[in-house]
Amino acid sequence: MARAPEVRVLAVDPGTQVVGYAVLEWCTGRARVVEASVLRIGGKGTQASRLLALHEGLCEVIARCEPSEMAVEDIFLAKNARSALKLGQARGVVLLTAAERSLPVFEYTPAEVKQAIVGHGGASKEQVQRMVAARLGLASLPRPHDVADALAIALCHCQRVGLSRMGREE
Amino acid sequence: MARAPEVRVLAVDPGTQVVGYAVLEWCTGRARVVEASVLRIGGKGTQASRLLALHEGLCEVIARCEPSEMAVEDIFLAKNARSALKLGQARGVVLLTAAERSLPVFEYTPAEVKQAIVGHGGASKEQVQRMVAARLGLASLPRPHDVADALAIALCHCQRVGLSRMGREE
Repeated sequence: MARAPEVRVLAVDPGTQVVGYAVLEWCTGRARVVEASVLRIGGKGTQASRLLALHEGLCEVIARCEPSEMAVEDIFLAKNARSALKLGQARGVVLLTAAERSLPVFEYTPAEVKQAIVGHGGASKEQVQRMVAARLGLASLPRPHDVADALAIALCHCQRVGLSRMGREE
Repeated sequence: MARAPEVRVLAVDPGTQVVGYAVLEWCTGRARVVEASVLRIGGKGTQASRLLALHEGLCEVIARCEPSEMAVEDIFLAKNARSALKLGQARGVVLLTAAERSLPVFEYTPAEVKQAIVGHGGASKEQVQRMVAARLGLASLPRPHDVADALAIALCHCQRVGLSRMGREE
């Protein structure tokens, strides 16, 4: 009988135009991609209507994929206060959606993601992507970069939490 | 017979700990305070649970006061990118709530608020508060400052939109 997955995580990479997401399942030390794509929230409409589109898109992903938790990047830097504010707006909607659906949220800094996947916090984006592709058995590097980032965050979370939970069960 | 109000606006002043709000009604050139208070979202809990508390608090205000539109400050500046991000998260939830309830959102810069209320964009906070208190017939200056700011934004919106609508009706 197949073991039930230990983790099914929805990782989200918030942006002001495009929001990458990835749902990964972690079972007996292996990660499997359930779904990975982008929500496009740019284009026409007001800021409020774009945030509503993001909220609705995330709710659909959660209803379809039924994750047990959410992972997001813990952002420290932005180009400037104006872009940090816009990014924060999208991030606020992402966190609210998790809380509404009772998904616990785990946050990882970029260095933690690199450390978990490549083994050192100063790894390049390309190194991270190559390792993500190898671990998930992807035929090519994940694209666009929003999806690649979401996959990396999801994999980081699976490794961290999945391994610690396996440790407790043994 | 009393005239129906031309505007009933919910103004929100987002913060990371305290969110000020004010509901004002504008009728035949006069503004009336329907409700003005704060939502406290600081304290314990995760960022996500605080944003959920903000969302629920705003939904209750909207259900109780039935505003026809929302006004928020258009923020350009923050102390740094980190605080802009946090502020943006709260602002994102505010804008999302407006969109969910089909409230059109109007944004005003701090200078526009000062210009509308005092007559020049370089007015001090105290000058704005004195004028807000006078216009709304308040016995003392509005407090805390989160509520004072929300009242100022609401009054700015009422004057701008109320006057322009009266102009069209005449």
